[in-house]
Amino acid sequence: MSKLIKGRSKKAGFSPGTLIHIGEKKAETPKITVMDYDEAHFQEKEVKTVEECFAFKDTPGVTWINIDGLHQIEILEKLGECYGFHPLVLEDILNTDQRPKMEDYGDYLYIVLRMLSYKDKSSQIETEQVSLILGPNFVFSFQEGERDVFDPVRERIRSGKGRIRKMGADYLAYALIDLIVDHYFMIMEKLGETIEFLEEELVTQPTSETLQTIHQLKRELIFLRKAVWPLREVIGGLQRGELTLIKEASRIYLRDVYDHTIQVIDTIETFRDMISGMLDIYLSSVSNRLNSVMKVLTIIATIFMPLTFIAGIYGMNFKFMPELEWRWGYPMVWVLMIVISLFMLLYFKKKRWL
Amino acid sequence: MSKLIKGRSKKAGFSPGTLIHIGEKKAETPKITVMDYDEAHFQEKEVKTVEECFAFKDTPGVTWINIDGLHQIEILEKLGECYGFHPLVLEDILNTDQRPKMEDYGDYLYIVLRMLSYKDKSSQIETEQVSLILGPNFVFSFQEGERDVFDPVRERIRSGKGRIRKMGADYLAYALIDLIVDHYFMIMEKLGETIEFLEEELVTQPTSETLQTIHQLKRELIFLRKAVWPLREVIGGLQRGELTLIKEASRIYLRDVYDHTIQVIDTIETFRDMISGMLDIYLSSVSNRLNSVMKVLTIIATIFMPLTFIAGIYGMNFKFMPELEWRWGYPMVWVLMIVISLFMLLYFKKKRWL
Amino acid sequence: MSKLIKGRSKKAGFSPGTLIHIGEKKAETPKITVMDYDEAHFQEKEVKTVEECFAFKDTPGVTWINIDGLHQIEILEKLGECYGFHPLVLEDILNTDQRPKMEDYGDYLYIVLRMLSYKDKSSQIETEQVSLILGPNFVFSFQEGERDVFDPVRERIRSGKGRIRKMGADYLAYALIDLIVDHYFMIMEKLGETIEFLEEELVTQPTSETLQTIHQLKRELIFLRKAVWPLREVIGGLQRGELTLIKEASRIYLRDVYDHTIQVIDTIETFRDMISGMLDIYLSSVSNRLNSVMKVLTIIATIFMPLTFIAGIYGMNFKFMPELEWRWGYPMVWVLMIVISLFMLLYFKKKRWL
Amino acid sequence: MSKLIKGRSKKAGFSPGTLIHIGEKKAETPKITVMDYDEAHFQEKEVKTVEECFAFKDTPGVTWINIDGLHQIEILEKLGECYGFHPLVLEDILNTDQRPKMEDYGDYLYIVLRMLSYKDKSSQIETEQVSLILGPNFVFSFQEGERDVFDPVRERIRSGKGRIRKMGADYLAYALIDLIVDHYFMIMEKLGETIEFLEEELVTQPTSETLQTIHQLKRELIFLRKAVWPLREVIGGLQRGELTLIKEASRIYLRDVYDHTIQVIDTIETFRDMISGMLDIYLSSVSNRLNSVMKVLTIIATIFMPLTFIAGIYGMNFKFMPELEWRWGYPMVWVLMIVISLFMLLYFKKKRWL
Amino acid sequence: MSKLIKGRSKKAGFSPGTLIHIGEKKAETPKITVMDYDEAHFQEKEVKTVEECFAFKDTPGVTWINIDGLHQIEILEKLGECYGFHPLVLEDILNTDQRPKMEDYGDYLYIVLRMLSYKDKSSQIETEQVSLILGPNFVFSFQEGERDVFDPVRERIRSGKGRIRKMGADYLAYALIDLIVDHYFMIMEKLGETIEFLEEELVTQPTSETLQTIHQLKRELIFLRKAVWPLREVIGGLQRGELTLIKEASRIYLRDVYDHTIQVIDTIETFRDMISGMLDIYLSSVSNRLNSVMKVLTIIATIFMPLTFIAGIYGMNFKFMPELEWRWGYPMVWVLMIVISLFMLLYFKKKRWL
Repeated sequence: MSKLIKGRSKKAGFSPGTLIHIGEKKAETPKITVMDYDEAHFQEKEVKTVEECFAFKDTPGVTWINIDGLHQIEILEKLGECYGFHPLVLEDILNTDQRPKMEDYGDYLYIVLRMLSYKDKSSQIETEQVSLILGPNFVFSFQEGERDVFDPVRERIRSGKGRIRKMGADYLAYALIDLIVDHYFMIMEKLGETIEFLEEELVTQPTSETLQTIHQLKRELIFLRKAVWPLREVIGGLQRGELTLIKEASRIYLRDVYDHTIQVIDTIETFRDMISGMLDIYLSSVSNRLNSVMKVLTIIATIFMPLTFIAGIYGMNFKFMPELEWRWGYPMVWVLMIVISLFMLLYFKKKRWL
Repeated sequence: MSKLIKGRSKKAGFSPGTLIHIGEKKAETPKITVMDYDEAHFQEKEVKTVEECFAFKDTPGVTWINIDGLHQIEILEKLGECYGFHPLVLEDILNTDQRPKMEDYGDYLYIVLRMLSYKDKSSQIETEQVSLILGPNFVFSFQEGERDVFDPVRERIRSGKGRIRKMGADYLAYALIDLIVDHYFMIMEKLGETIEFLEEELVTQPTSETLQTIHQLKRELIFLRKAVWPLREVIGGLQRGELTLIKEASRIYLRDVYDHTIQVIDTIETFRDMISGMLDIYLSSVSNRLNSVMKVLTIIATIFMPLTFIAGIYGMNFKFMPELEWRWGYPMVWVLMIVISLFMLLYFKKKRWL
Repeated sequence: MSKLIKGRSKKAGFSPGTLIHIGEKKAETPKITVMDYDEAHFQEKEVKTVEECFAFKDTPGVTWINIDGLHQIEILEKLGECYGFHPLVLEDILNTDQRPKMEDYGDYLYIVLRMLSYKDKSSQIETEQVSLILGPNFVFSFQEGERDVFDPVRERIRSGKGRIRKMGADYLAYALIDLIVDHYFMIMEKLGETIEFLEEELVTQPTSETLQTIHQLKRELIFLRKAVWPLREVIGGLQRGELTLIKEASRIYLRDVYDHTIQVIDTIETFRDMISGMLDIYLSSVSNRLNSVMKVLTIIATIFMPLTFIAGIYGMNFKFMPELEWRWGYPMVWVLMIVISLFMLLYFKKKRWL
Repeated sequence: MSKLIKGRSKKAGFSPGTLIHIGEKKAETPKITVMDYDEAHFQEKEVKTVEECFAFKDTPGVTWINIDGLHQIEILEKLGECYGFHPLVLEDILNTDQRPKMEDYGDYLYIVLRMLSYKDKSSQIETEQVSLILGPNFVFSFQEGERDVFDPVRERIRSGKGRIRKMGADYLAYALIDLIVDHYFMIMEKLGETIEFLEEELVTQPTSETLQTIHQLKRELIFLRKAVWPLREVIGGLQRGELTLIKEASRIYLRDVYDHTIQVIDTIETFRDMISGMLDIYLSSVSNRLNSVMKVLTIIATIFMPLTFIAGIYGMNFKFMPELEWRWGYPMVWVLMIVISLFMLLYFKKKRWL
Repeated sequence: MSKLIKGRSKKAGFSPGTLIHIGEKKAETPKITVMDYDEAHFQEKEVKTVEECFAFKDTPGVTWINIDGLHQIEILEKLGECYGFHPLVLEDILNTDQRPKMEDYGDYLYIVLRMLSYKDKSSQIETEQVSLILGPNFVFSFQEGERDVFDPVRERIRSGKGRIRKMGADYLAYALIDLIVDHYFMIMEKLGETIEFLEEELVTQPTSETLQTIHQLKRELIFLRKAVWPLREVIGGLQRGELTLIKEASRIYLRDVYDHTIQVIDTIETFRDMISGMLDIYLSSVSNRLNSVMKVLTIIATIFMPLTFIAGIYGMNFKFMPELEWRWGYPMVWVLMIVISLFMLLYFKKKRWL
């Protein structure tokens, strides 16, 4: 829960644009990497200070500056000043509990996405905010922690194969978004496996742990949904063609990511439906077991209560009880008891309890 | 579950348009059949290599190229090059877990549909992706497995009867879509029968297997819904008349398919409603049975406990128990017991437990 | 269930416009009646062959041709040819499982409605497809069975009272639609009575048959809803004034039918809400009864188990049991038992179980 | 239920505009009151015959004619003729089961509202149809029964204070609508109190009557909702400014009523949410009680069954039972029994059943 | 409940614009504070009488008049007269049960918001109405009680740092709205903690108090939702740019608040989803406990009933019972009993009840 909303309140009353980092400090020192490329040349560099980036501001090619770790606020401040970003953009980059959104500031687009990753240990899904700023010939990407998620794109730029070097900053932004959405499919597969496993368990032998897992899964899906649903609007907005920063050629690719997003949302909804069905199954299997427990109890009680009563009768100490004196009294009682038991068993058979 | 999302993740990080086949290999060797026709002439041919198709590119009539089996990626690559299809289209043809969609690439339309089939053995519904590419005078159809689903259309082309030979490629595409949607009705009928059967079973004697079947049916409907819902938008888009590739004359037919799609969706929703009603019925019947089990137990216990107690009383070994000495003690105890039993039975009668 | 989707699948693969009758044969021989009228004159006639109708094609007045019974396909074929109806219209008239819809073919409108009737015997609602074709000066109506539902309209035409003779074909179509929608109110009243009756039964003495009735009602409402919801759109479309075949003067009447349709839909939704509430009540009443059964059992067991135990104690055969020798042992045990029973009864009183 | 749909069916087949009163006869003789005013003068009169009203038709001021009691159809007929109202309007005034609606007939607006009143005796909400016809300088109001609901408006007209005398007929219509909507708040308060009371009862001691009340409340809310929801659209339509009969100055007031309507709807939805929550609470409290009943039973049975068994053992009459001969046998059995009981109690303590 | 709708009904029938204060009197004497500032100068003053404010009406800078406490109606009357506010605005300021809304009166905007605060004692959320009137160069704020919520904004104005002194009245209004929305995050955090705590409790040991808390939380969320949902529309309307009173420069900030509102709504929906999941968990844990109680009972009964029966058999007093005479009869009975118990235990083991 905490990851959802912690820390927001401490900002109440501050002037808008006040830069405060909300969220855990996930990287030791912020790591700044710069890539500058066009179709012909290509340059890659890890810089120490943010000032080194400023040199790339006016290069003709596409400049991609990636920043891992957000807790050094002065980096953002300097960047913001140099590139003229709106204070609210910088503030939002630091508030790492944003829902996905896209904002058009005319000269640049600010895009917030959520990167999902599956922690195998706790079998929980973690989300991390990734901010992108897309300008005419630059892309900034901001991540909370140190990850290599963008490595495949870096590799494609380095190798110079494919379309990426021939196209502009908008295509680079697309490539990054595509990578993030592709990661969602991995999460979906993990969840799909868990659900498959649960479905089998439900049929074979549901325990109260099964219920716990169903509940946890449901909870994860609530959070996933919250992270993915707004993405639809974000990418839909990018692809719709009202933004001058997104060129026609890239839009067809964004439509592809849009489709993927809808597929992920679809899958989440399907999972939700399935899980709610599983809860029903679990509850009815609990009812069924209660039923069968009660049947066992009832059968035992219904058979032995009359028998015990009869035994009690002839355990009485009345002086004048003629049956007690009879030669065949004892065997006859046994016969009576067996007849009663058989009758009861037949009755249960008829009622389909046996 | 696996069919839903398997394999997508292995594509993460690849350049868009990278051709990787996702899904099982359902056909041994891909089978390519070509039909070329206009009102006057007609030609049909099964080709070995994809290059043979290229000859048909500039024929004046309508060319229909059907490809069964998608795992030989080079076929698609060559086709794409020859006809100038966008790499994303080729990629989507191979990703056989798409939801139905329609994309307008100007020169051609790319349409994804899902073919449903009912496996009698497992009583499960299987879906298979069918991709159509509709150009000004050609239609490509791509299927995963080797099926004869399109045979009725082939037959109509061969016979030359009906409208099909007189009309263009858009009408051919319509005919193929119509065929696929008509197959949905078959699935609906199968499901309808199962539901009918279940409803009867529920009334006569619900078992925990009934619940399993209800659950499975619900699950199938979740998947069906996912496959059919987007179709509405797809065919709606084709029929709305903003696409130049769809001629006026064909639109009236597409409106008809649109109606069928809505009818299928309607039926799915009705089935969902009915199944959720059935679950309620099942659960209340379980509760009712529990109730009746408990009543039997309670009646037995309530009658025999007091009797056994009385028998216990006169089984005590006190020296001074006047009743034990009485001449009519034993019969009087019997009378007492019978009176108590009758009283109890009347009480249960009044409570409507008997 | 069968009425929903039976028979559709046998059409798969046929050329569109192929005329096949789907549904039961409800009338022996199709009955064709023609009415031709304007403000001044009026003619009514039952014709034997469809060709006789053709004479009315060019009369200046309004021609209403009503056909009961659809299984003689040639009648439709000839009509279609003579009046130039689209093959899909004829096909839809025969597919008697359509949802209500309205299609504009320029020269004429094709309207599908569903006539509801309540079978008192089975207390089930049956639906029948009624197709209307509205042209500039003619109305065709097609019914599956032989009914007199349209008789009030016929009577109004014959008598020449009211507006009907003064107005055009669109008003006649309105009058027929109005009649069908008015019939819905009858169904609503029947259902309303059943619900009222059920509500009382639920309070006084719910049985498992009550549940069956609730379930059946729910099922009926699912089908009703399916039949009535699309009507809203159909009549809304007719009344909105984009159709040249509907004159301004008639639109105000169609708005009135539209209101009625919404009222019917409203009522259906209200009924659904009420029935789902009734299910809740039923389930809680089952739980309550289980509770009261368990309380009886528990009270009996809790009182008699300790008493029987005490009796058992003094039924033991130990040589040295001082109590057994006491003069007042037996009465004292009785006192003890009564004290225990009273104590238990007080406890249950306090717990409000008595 | 009856109030919902009774009587509609008897109109099926009649010509539209046929005047039949649907609903109970709520007033003995219809009462017609006329008010005619402008800023300077004011006249009020109770008329005997409807013809007396016609004199006011062409007065320069605003004429308000209020009619209580609708069963004398000829009054409506004469009014309709004199003022030229559409027959469908007159029909709708008499069909007192309409949902709120607003219809624009060009020269006048026809508005249907539902007046709610709370019957303290039966604690049921009753609705009554109020029809308004708003013309350029007149307002007609039709009520089913004889009520004084409009008295505050009459008082304001008489006193001449406030805005009402200075403004036109549209403001008068607003004032009447406002009064009706203000009455809804009273109903909301009554319901709010009932819910508050129920919530307390649920926590302290829920009985099966609580359930009945919850159910009844739910039912009332279903009907309330049906009466209030369409109002939103009605008043929204009046206030939106497309109607020439509503002047700019009055629209700001209608926006205010619109807000109130939304507030009422909001409250209804909140109540619905709360009531559905209460049902959950009730059901879990029933489950909890069942649980505690079962615990008592189980504790008693689990303690006394072993003890009774032991007593039974030493009640056996075997010749050779060494224990029976022991000097301390009897006390030792007591010790054994006490140990077993304590052990059981500890076990239940651990399980938190005590 | 009372806070929702109390007092509204007492206004029924009054002329619109009649000023009546609805709500509790939360402040002793109304407190009026005035701030007047522009970039260069700044003035702050607490005034005694409302007339003192009028002097600020025509100052060139931004005037902010804050009024705490609404029960002195004459203050509002005088303000309304001086500034020309519409009577309905004044009425709405006093009706402190409004839902958030924004109304454009041309010269000024009237905005209603709800301030939330968390009462730690009762762990309940309280809402208070805050009204804003935004004119070209003034802002009025009206609060019910005496609070210091706006202090951070006052501080920012005093210090002259940040943007606030440089911008107009619209920015001031934004700053106040922002403050109120930021407070929502605090409430969300409190609720988040409660939910987190509940989730743990549910897993470890759910009691019926847990259920009470879940229910209360659900209830709070219903009210929260009602207070926050309309805010979306309000701020959306302010930010959309159709209002001339909101300058372009401020709109980017309003978009930020809009995002926050959506985030709050999102969180509320997530909480609702989680709580409904918790109720399911609670109910199944109750079922599970019932199951385990029943198992204990059944095991005990099933083991001891047969044993007691056997003991009963040999407690009978028949003259001729050969077993009683046997030398090893008593030990053999013990062996028999132990065998039966073991068999039962194995049976339960197999059934997984142990």
